[in-house]
Amino acid sequence: MRIATYMKDQQCYVGVVSEDGLTVQTLDVAPETAEQGVLGLIEAYGDQARIAKLAHATAVPLSSVQLLAPIPRPRRNIFCVGRNYHAHAKELSGSVFKANNTDAAAWPIVFTKVPETVIAHGDDVILPTGVTEQVDYEAELAIVIGKGGKNISKADAMSHVWGYTIVNDVTARDVQMRHQQWDLGKSFDTFCPMGPWLITADSFNATDTRVRCWVNDELRQEGQTRDLIFDLPTLIETCSRGISLYPGDIIATGTPAGVGMGFTPPRYLKSGDRVRIQIDGIGTLENAFR
Amino acid sequence: MRIATYMKDQQCYVGVVSEDGLTVQTLDVAPETAEQGVLGLIEAYGDQARIAKLAHATAVPLSSVQLLAPIPRPRRNIFCVGRNYHAHAKELSGSVFKANNTDAAAWPIVFTKVPETVIAHGDDVILPTGVTEQVDYEAELAIVIGKGGKNISKADAMSHVWGYTIVNDVTARDVQMRHQQWDLGKSFDTFCPMGPWLITADSFNATDTRVRCWVNDELRQEGQTRDLIFDLPTLIETCSRGISLYPGDIIATGTPAGVGMGFTPPRYLKSGDRVRIQIDGIGTLENAFR
Repeated sequence: MRIATYMKDQQCYVGVVSEDGLTVQTLDVAPETAEQGVLGLIEAYGDQARIAKLAHATAVPLSSVQLLAPIPRPRRNIFCVGRNYHAHAKELSGSVFKANNTDAAAWPIVFTKVPETVIAHGDDVILPTGVTEQVDYEAELAIVIGKGGKNISKADAMSHVWGYTIVNDVTARDVQMRHQQWDLGKSFDTFCPMGPWLITADSFNATDTRVRCWVNDELRQEGQTRDLIFDLPTLIETCSRGISLYPGDIIATGTPAGVGMGFTPPRYLKSGDRVRIQIDGIGTLENAFR
Repeated sequence: MRIATYMKDQQCYVGVVSEDGLTVQTLDVAPETAEQGVLGLIEAYGDQARIAKLAHATAVPLSSVQLLAPIPRPRRNIFCVGRNYHAHAKELSGSVFKANNTDAAAWPIVFTKVPETVIAHGDDVILPTGVTEQVDYEAELAIVIGKGGKNISKADAMSHVWGYTIVNDVTARDVQMRHQQWDLGKSFDTFCPMGPWLITADSFNATDTRVRCWVNDELRQEGQTRDLIFDLPTLIETCSRGISLYPGDIIATGTPAGVGMGFTPPRYLKSGDRVRIQIDGIGTLENAFR
């Protein structure tokens, strides 16, 4: 089941997207639930079979609605994983990962992005003029937690996943580097395109899918989630060690090789560029930069 | 004006604490405002003169209420500043700050703690057994933002401050180090004692006050905010560069020398320890560890 959050006639809805991605069936939920998108759904209903029964019989064309991010405003900062594909670890070994432990498999690197970075498929990412000259893309699979918990074991981890979506972990490389801790360089307004929708865990094999990213139709990133240095259960176990996870929490799982900073010379984004991310089985997230 | 958030008879209130810290006058606000503590007050009223007029004539003894953190659940992760007193930069130069830029004045280091770390004065910090063996204290002055904004200049910064409180930026040193990015090692449940209350900006000279911390009555940390490497306007300017700040946002401003990791051998916290932080002009925040 693919669940989208969207606006129609100035009102916010959640709905089930058809297999072909062309139509959506509105879910019959309270407006205050819909306003929180999938986060509202998880908190109000949780159980996905119950949610499916709330779908209106009639479907409307997806082209007639305005997509929002599946979770337009996360409940707290988004957990993000750094250096989680070997080829990406290598391409930035002289820059972003220079000061880091050289053993790639040591412990996951986890930082955060503020919730207000989130924008939808189709929204513009605003380049923060005068603050950074090195804006870069990072295509990522993101986990959305359904059942909260603390000290979740790897064995149990996948039962805590409600679904998956795509994020672009947009990054200002100069800011990321100069503050040493990465949160600021990852947290500029509009720096987290998310969408186009969420796919529920039962409908998707997240452990073996392809992540690709194009800049202006040029393929830049291509990775397989089976090649993650730290797999999804390990990431959930890691983030929940001593830290309670909550329904709706988001964990972005890291990006494959091919980011702009990895080129010589680096190829940062400029106004007018378009970044398109596709994850097989989920869909396509595309945003212009200006 | 000192504003406390507290429970009495199973209900949540905000109120004005007397000069001597012995009584509190309840503010006449809606229950859903009070439940958010000072964050609710800022969002619903903002103007402090207007808030003062909401105080009940009668005062109740502070000993008859249960203090909560002034903002029991921040709106998003707390911004925290690392390495902001020279002596502290020096004491951890071989460990936490080893991989960092050696020029202390380069750029502030900013990381975050999840909102759910927050506990009140008097609450216990729970040592996450099996996850960390190196729990440390960090006494800090925290800024609470009143007026939001983006790209706030140093010159305007102080007009965005609503008030100040005390936080203990409790840290698991082993976890902080091994993940390279610090957010996880700073984000364990109960790892952010905050309080005992907030003092409004008009009643407090935050730029020249004393921060002290005792462990079991032994003075460990003592610093003056005039000695900050990055002063308060610089921190607000830094956090708001390209990133919108919102009313109720919290910026913890860094800790003076004297943390447990700075001793040889290190002196980490163990069950039964009590950490007491005092900032002149605000009050005392004390918590037991177990």
